[in-house]
Amino acid sequence: MNEKMPFYLPPIESTLDAALQARLQHKIDHKTKPLGALGRLESLALQLGLIQHTESPALHAPQMLVFAADHGIAAEGVSAFPQAVTVQMVANMLAGGAAINVFARQHGFALQVVDAGVAAELPAHAQLLSRKIAMGSANICLDPAMTRGQAQAALVAGMQVVAPLPGNAVAFGEMGIANTSPAALLLARLAGVSIEDATGRGTGLDDAQLRHKQAVLRRALARHPATEPPDAIGELATLGGFEIAMMAGAMLQAASQRRVVLVDGFIAGAAALLALRLAPEVRGYLVFCHRSAETGHRLLLAHLQATALLELDLRLGEGTGALLAWPLVQSAAAFLNEMASFESAGVSTRQDD
Amino acid sequence: MNEKMPFYLPPIESTLDAALQARLQHKIDHKTKPLGALGRLESLALQLGLIQHTESPALHAPQMLVFAADHGIAAEGVSAFPQAVTVQMVANMLAGGAAINVFARQHGFALQVVDAGVAAELPAHAQLLSRKIAMGSANICLDPAMTRGQAQAALVAGMQVVAPLPGNAVAFGEMGIANTSPAALLLARLAGVSIEDATGRGTGLDDAQLRHKQAVLRRALARHPATEPPDAIGELATLGGFEIAMMAGAMLQAASQRRVVLVDGFIAGAAALLALRLAPEVRGYLVFCHRSAETGHRLLLAHLQATALLELDLRLGEGTGALLAWPLVQSAAAFLNEMASFESAGVSTRQDD
Repeated sequence: MNEKMPFYLPPIESTLDAALQARLQHKIDHKTKPLGALGRLESLALQLGLIQHTESPALHAPQMLVFAADHGIAAEGVSAFPQAVTVQMVANMLAGGAAINVFARQHGFALQVVDAGVAAELPAHAQLLSRKIAMGSANICLDPAMTRGQAQAALVAGMQVVAPLPGNAVAFGEMGIANTSPAALLLARLAGVSIEDATGRGTGLDDAQLRHKQAVLRRALARHPATEPPDAIGELATLGGFEIAMMAGAMLQAASQRRVVLVDGFIAGAAALLALRLAPEVRGYLVFCHRSAETGHRLLLAHLQATALLELDLRLGEGTGALLAWPLVQSAAAFLNEMASFESAGVSTRQDD
Repeated sequence: MNEKMPFYLPPIESTLDAALQARLQHKIDHKTKPLGALGRLESLALQLGLIQHTESPALHAPQMLVFAADHGIAAEGVSAFPQAVTVQMVANMLAGGAAINVFARQHGFALQVVDAGVAAELPAHAQLLSRKIAMGSANICLDPAMTRGQAQAALVAGMQVVAPLPGNAVAFGEMGIANTSPAALLLARLAGVSIEDATGRGTGLDDAQLRHKQAVLRRALARHPATEPPDAIGELATLGGFEIAMMAGAMLQAASQRRVVLVDGFIAGAAALLALRLAPEVRGYLVFCHRSAETGHRLLLAHLQATALLELDLRLGEGTGALLAWPLVQSAAAFLNEMASFESAGVSTRQDD
């Protein structure tokens, strides 16, 4: 893609609809339960109705996309695992042996792995989409992670991956050794979080390794001054990664098709942050599925004023948090569609009503 | 049942088994994921293995039991809903219209409602087990909730309800207007929590109603001094309710049959507290499924050193929190059984290993 080539976002409708929202809230409030007693499921049911523009949302053919890429910054020793694990774990996923496969089978998700930029040639496989932009990103400590043209190409490739998918819900996960580093850098740059707060232990760094990672990321951030005026695609190119870029594009496309967007953990959260900078209307389509114990992830969700459905101390990625939360999304639609109302069931309302 | 009749608990084996625990932990740690990266699911998988005494736990034919009863203390105005709602909601459950029905259908639970002491004659129904001890408990502000003989009868009835059930997992929920009051009283008495902390808004009290409920519960607690020596069945009879008593007996039986015990919210938690006083070995079988925002529930779980799987601001009861958490229990068993190991998948371990 040419550097100067204009870049078009898919049109994304806001989910806001005051009249529909009032009807949905009325329906929720008249179910046979105390007001608000289904807690977080109630706001989720409301969101599903607004996304699908109906009082009776229905979910079908859910899709799991795992975006995989490598990161030049891995050379700085910021991960507990060697870079080769990215391609090994992609193979594990294609063989059905990873955690994400187990949960996809459990919940009936069609799973595809998208090679956004793994640093190895991957053999063809029915569940592998080859959308490789490059053999891994550059080392952000030295150079921009990718060119602006590559960032745009990754965004567009993500859109094209989602466009033909069946169903109306897509879960977003990733695999990429060292990818908490670009996620932390994007969080620091786009949300103004300090490197100390944005940087976590990833797959299991000890104290000294964590201090090293923070020093590396401080160096990387200092090397690349903020774009002026603010420019999300520029920051993505400089500080991001191919799976993050492609995931952001995929989320934009999913929202433009009014799909439910299931956001997994910290890396997918960074992609969501980017998508929101490009198109704030995406917000209504995002379901944040899991919050990890990492400070950076908490701050990212706080920045987005988002509450995740689960908090299970997961730090695996792949999309596992998204799939584990899926039954709750189904439950939200189910109670809205299937529960009796006070009137239909002949149940008394509150004493003070 | 005669007041003097001896009362026998079913024999309950401890789930502790250091050798099996080590084997399970080894299996968990060699799955293709960073150490501990599946967080809370890992401790859950370990627990399932210990309960079923196997490295490959399997769940089948899950059962949902909803214990229903009325409470004389409802006459003191401690609930936002009239007492008639208990029987109306039982009818709603038998008609399939309550939240618990929706989630039971979603997750394939067989649902039965147990009439432990509803203050009305209930028409026969295939899903209703009539184990009525009395037409509601007495008003604890004036009298003990029930006699010791009734408490023992309720415990035994709970055991008998569970004994013949198929499957190896039972979820415990309840329906009973005003039943957060006996639950709060038992928490205060058995765990030494103050009435202020133990008392919540239940199905939706406002500030003045909450203060009134606290005054009522303080009065009730003061009227019945603690048993000396401590006697859980005595406290249950004085401060409890029929559904709580029967649920506690049912939990004891489930543990004696090495079933997974899915504990819903605050009321089921109070029953678990009682069951643990009667047989501490029950602890290993309990899976705490949901923590509500109520201070009392937080303190109850803290007292039991338990972490709940979900925190969704539910305050509905019925067993909804238990069923919403069920897919996570299935996921824990599934990853343990189905994920590849580093060795089988040819994935590299940590750089520092």
